[in-house]
Amino acid sequence: MKKIAIIMGSDSDLPIVKKAMDMLESFQVPYEVHVFSAHRTPIEAAEFSKTAREKGFGAIIAAAGMAAHLAGAIAANTTLPVIGIPVASGNLGGIDALLSTVQMPTGIPVATVAVNGAGNAALLCIQILAVEDKALAEALDAKRVADAKKVLEKNQAIEAEFNK
Amino acid sequence: MKKIAIIMGSDSDLPIVKKAMDMLESFQVPYEVHVFSAHRTPIEAAEFSKTAREKGFGAIIAAAGMAAHLAGAIAANTTLPVIGIPVASGNLGGIDALLSTVQMPTGIPVATVAVNGAGNAALLCIQILAVEDKALAEALDAKRVADAKKVLEKNQAIEAEFNK
Amino acid sequence: MKKIAIIMGSDSDLPIVKKAMDMLESFQVPYEVHVFSAHRTPIEAAEFSKTAREKGFGAIIAAAGMAAHLAGAIAANTTLPVIGIPVASGNLGGIDALLSTVQMPTGIPVATVAVNGAGNAALLCIQILAVEDKALAEALDAKRVADAKKVLEKNQAIEAEFNK
Amino acid sequence: MKKIAIIMGSDSDLPIVKKAMDMLESFQVPYEVHVFSAHRTPIEAAEFSKTAREKGFGAIIAAAGMAAHLAGAIAANTTLPVIGIPVASGNLGGIDALLSTVQMPTGIPVATVAVNGAGNAALLCIQILAVEDKALAEALDAKRVADAKKVLEKNQAIEAEFNK
Amino acid sequence: MKKIAIIMGSDSDLPIVKKAMDMLESFQVPYEVHVFSAHRTPIEAAEFSKTAREKGFGAIIAAAGMAAHLAGAIAANTTLPVIGIPVASGNLGGIDALLSTVQMPTGIPVATVAVNGAGNAALLCIQILAVEDKALAEALDAKRVADAKKVLEKNQAIEAEFNK
Amino acid sequence: MKKIAIIMGSDSDLPIVKKAMDMLESFQVPYEVHVFSAHRTPIEAAEFSKTAREKGFGAIIAAAGMAAHLAGAIAANTTLPVIGIPVASGNLGGIDALLSTVQMPTGIPVATVAVNGAGNAALLCIQILAVEDKALAEALDAKRVADAKKVLEKNQAIEAEFNK
Amino acid sequence: MKKIAIIMGSDSDLPIVKKAMDMLESFQVPYEVHVFSAHRTPIEAAEFSKTAREKGFGAIIAAAGMAAHLAGAIAANTTLPVIGIPVASGNLGGIDALLSTVQMPTGIPVATVAVNGAGNAALLCIQILAVEDKALAEALDAKRVADAKKVLEKNQAIEAEFNK
Amino acid sequence: MKKIAIIMGSDSDLPIVKKAMDMLESFQVPYEVHVFSAHRTPIEAAEFSKTAREKGFGAIIAAAGMAAHLAGAIAANTTLPVIGIPVASGNLGGIDALLSTVQMPTGIPVATVAVNGAGNAALLCIQILAVEDKALAEALDAKRVADAKKVLEKNQAIEAEFNK
Repeated sequence: MKKIAIIMGSDSDLPIVKKAMDMLESFQVPYEVHVFSAHRTPIEAAEFSKTAREKGFGAIIAAAGMAAHLAGAIAANTTLPVIGIPVASGNLGGIDALLSTVQMPTGIPVATVAVNGAGNAALLCIQILAVEDKALAEALDAKRVADAKKVLEKNQAIEAEFNK
Repeated sequence: MKKIAIIMGSDSDLPIVKKAMDMLESFQVPYEVHVFSAHRTPIEAAEFSKTAREKGFGAIIAAAGMAAHLAGAIAANTTLPVIGIPVASGNLGGIDALLSTVQMPTGIPVATVAVNGAGNAALLCIQILAVEDKALAEALDAKRVADAKKVLEKNQAIEAEFNK
Repeated sequence: MKKIAIIMGSDSDLPIVKKAMDMLESFQVPYEVHVFSAHRTPIEAAEFSKTAREKGFGAIIAAAGMAAHLAGAIAANTTLPVIGIPVASGNLGGIDALLSTVQMPTGIPVATVAVNGAGNAALLCIQILAVEDKALAEALDAKRVADAKKVLEKNQAIEAEFNK
Repeated sequence: MKKIAIIMGSDSDLPIVKKAMDMLESFQVPYEVHVFSAHRTPIEAAEFSKTAREKGFGAIIAAAGMAAHLAGAIAANTTLPVIGIPVASGNLGGIDALLSTVQMPTGIPVATVAVNGAGNAALLCIQILAVEDKALAEALDAKRVADAKKVLEKNQAIEAEFNK
Repeated sequence: MKKIAIIMGSDSDLPIVKKAMDMLESFQVPYEVHVFSAHRTPIEAAEFSKTAREKGFGAIIAAAGMAAHLAGAIAANTTLPVIGIPVASGNLGGIDALLSTVQMPTGIPVATVAVNGAGNAALLCIQILAVEDKALAEALDAKRVADAKKVLEKNQAIEAEFNK
Repeated sequence: MKKIAIIMGSDSDLPIVKKAMDMLESFQVPYEVHVFSAHRTPIEAAEFSKTAREKGFGAIIAAAGMAAHLAGAIAANTTLPVIGIPVASGNLGGIDALLSTVQMPTGIPVATVAVNGAGNAALLCIQILAVEDKALAEALDAKRVADAKKVLEKNQAIEAEFNK
Repeated sequence: MKKIAIIMGSDSDLPIVKKAMDMLESFQVPYEVHVFSAHRTPIEAAEFSKTAREKGFGAIIAAAGMAAHLAGAIAANTTLPVIGIPVASGNLGGIDALLSTVQMPTGIPVATVAVNGAGNAALLCIQILAVEDKALAEALDAKRVADAKKVLEKNQAIEAEFNK
Repeated sequence: MKKIAIIMGSDSDLPIVKKAMDMLESFQVPYEVHVFSAHRTPIEAAEFSKTAREKGFGAIIAAAGMAAHLAGAIAANTTLPVIGIPVASGNLGGIDALLSTVQMPTGIPVATVAVNGAGNAALLCIQILAVEDKALAEALDAKRVADAKKVLEKNQAIEAEFNK
């Protein structure tokens, strides 16, 4: 199975990124984590991205805050799907990171998820791998069933408590 | 090759969505176009989404404006990758559609592109198919080279005109 | 008397939704509470909505945060009045939920209240039932008088403390 | 059948409000139109609102732009359901009118629709009347079927044109 | 000397409004404080405003949060200068109250100060009274000198600490 | 009677400022117009402001766009009431000018009106002069009556056209 | 004298960038113009930036719209001062480009000017060169005097027209 | 070597401004700190700015919150480069200070950094001095290398912990 790369712009993003790691592990999807900065280590970020496909990666997650250029900088150096997580840091609640990640010019797409939405970034990667991996697609479907069951159980608990 | 589905919430979104169709055609990636409304034809939208994988689709593009629920409604009914295009309609410049599309809860990701960013939505789908399709990956790389060449040519023209 | 349905997208919305329950109880308006997710349990949400009128409901309150599609998804499946409560969750203060709830396309209205405005969502439902229920209308008028009296008492307390 | 009142803050709002009138007419729901300003004719606005229920109105639509106080001012003087239409006027695209209309304090709800969403304001009123009017509920359901049919026809046209 | 009226929409606004009271007291400008709600006690708010000039008031301060209609509702009932304080309450940081207070239609002005800017609201009232009150104008000038002196002293302290 | 000063940051603001001039003229309130830039002619702007009271001005209107510092710069040099008009220029719709004008620090108030709200800026000045000028207060009241009459006439026209 | 580099992300930014060129020419400051894309020609952009100092540049202007990464990408590859011009393109009025340009992480500054503020970007470069170039500083001062004179002349024209 | 001036609008900005001081010290760049208010001590702010060049300053940093006019007021009185730090204070998260600082009119540029971005403000000043100071340019390059090394070390730590 192809691997997923998780790149964070700073190790302070680790608590957010951890949710992506946990999600990938729950699907037994192999991944690597790296800290590359679009601005402080642009060469390493570019180098990693350029060779990511041949190194066996199937998609790259990039998490960054403020003027979040990381996902775009990675996307500029690979044609693998790049998933951008806008991280809420600084004083503007993450709207800066969201716009910096999602408003990419035509030619270099970044698949953007919600502010701090690391779990969904991982799920997108798994969905991408599952396009050609039937077992993974079934695992995704199973999770949907399990998620729905949890909502239904919560519904039952709420109904039991409040609807007499 | 797997097909791409392009769903628009209203046929008024066609001028935007056309850019995605053109992009897919330029890569000879097969696609289907449909008009399904999350709110006016929710059954058809759900039905299409539930059976999309078995019908041979590899990813789904959903374009909608205002309280743009379409991409999320489709994503709720499939584990295929869903790409959301927030369409600028109404009076708020598309920020309503952007937030309605990107801020999805954990479990149901939507890969969101820029407001009206239909070309990139198509490219993301092609990138997804290219994960396991070497020829498509090479075509994407070739387009990058061609896009770069165009920028370099524009650069030469500008340099020739202004730098004496 | 017709019942009110209160649907929350997640049981984490209960503290907000509780204010609606309390308001309905203070008017002795019967209600049911449910947890249905527009994305995780779309079938149950749709099923409930489609049969809500025949089950004796007069209006439906839907509370959800972020890309808050719940109210719209319910409204797509019933012609009962649907009241949407945008819940402040995530990092954007609820403006995402507000726009996702209120900016509905023509044909599928959602009566939207303030961010976290659960008390007013309940009051709107009571007002709707009161259109044909004189006793309820009188109870609403009585509450207005009582609310005004509280403001006047606070005014007297403030005047007594500060205006010599 | 109870009547609907449509109040606009200025006769410049007529082109927006006209969509509500057309919608009500298409359901043969009786209505009256008035121009009352929350600020320029507050007495008339209050007087109308206080006596609206006894005059046979079932709901009131209020349309206003900028610091759109009209819906709130009407809601302060009646316990009938009040539907607020934020009108896009001035330089801020209607976000001022939206927040001024929707962010009402507990006790005085305004059922807010999208910026310029007059059609949905009318539909909400019809839904409110339909809670106790089976024929009207059936008319609403019939419109939903008709609206869905239009989308399906557009879908067929698009499919015929683009899917070979 | 004419009096200043300070109206708050809710007694929860008292901590903000207190800064206006303190400022007026420091200039020995007489004032009265009241709690009137634009929505819960509209009659009292209007009645007070209509008679404010003849009762000897020279200006009215109105403080309110969320869909802050109070200042506008008072301004609609008097031609005295009305100063609006947008109060930060709810989940949107006060931007809702700011727009609801400042974006008034032509004919009914509200002199708006910063979010929670109660001190400046009081200063504006004092400036208004000072237009025809030389002693008060001199007191305002003296405060400016004193404020400047404080900044200069802070400057000296900072310079002494950091500039060697 | 005291005069009103109207300062614009650039002569391109004249079409906005003209509405203030017309309003003052309709009340026969004397005024002067000047072009002073907070940034390009700061000395002239400060000099004018410092001597405005002794030159017989009763209030100063300042209109500016973008980083609209003009009203604040004038307010820093006088204790006369300063009315700020945020002008919509540039690409951000005037929200930049609104925040730059209204969010003043304690000590230096600017009475801010709506974006491009020049008519209300003039009315505020007239209201300020009217605090000690009974005839002017009566003229303001008369305008209110006339404005209300216009709304009532429009109401009658609308009622006649649409309410059968 | 050191040269100024003007980099635009796309030749569609030329009309904006032209204002910077004209400003530099009016000060006889030498410059070069280039089209480099942070995403389409990242290598060329980086290569140019890395060697800019040794090639005799004193500062670099970078203009880009939407997720405007260009200025940051250049700043990551040089320690020359980089001036960022957020360009208003797309549907969000330039607020996306502004936040993407200005919210840079510590270590890699971008000196950001107003949306579309190309003239000021050039002036900043001239100011930077003028720190060690007395003649240039005098030219800047002379322009200030000339700009002020223009405002004063406009003031005189306005005064002559309106102040009798 | 030329000195850097750091001006804060209030001594409450010291914790933010301290990061600029530390950065300048780490490069042994001489600086002075002052508290000048654009509104409370405009004369001192202007006086300092007008004579800054002849007093040996090479650039001026100005930090202010809310309607942050300080940087613009300083820039109006000098042709030295002025760096503006928008400080997050008040209730709007610093977006008010950002727009008030960056949206300057043509002729009077302010080089704006991120909200609270004092470290980068200092770095910009050092970059400006380094244009003609080879040793300083080398120190900047050395810091870039050191910063990159820190990221690479963090990367190694993260890789060692998570990539097995």
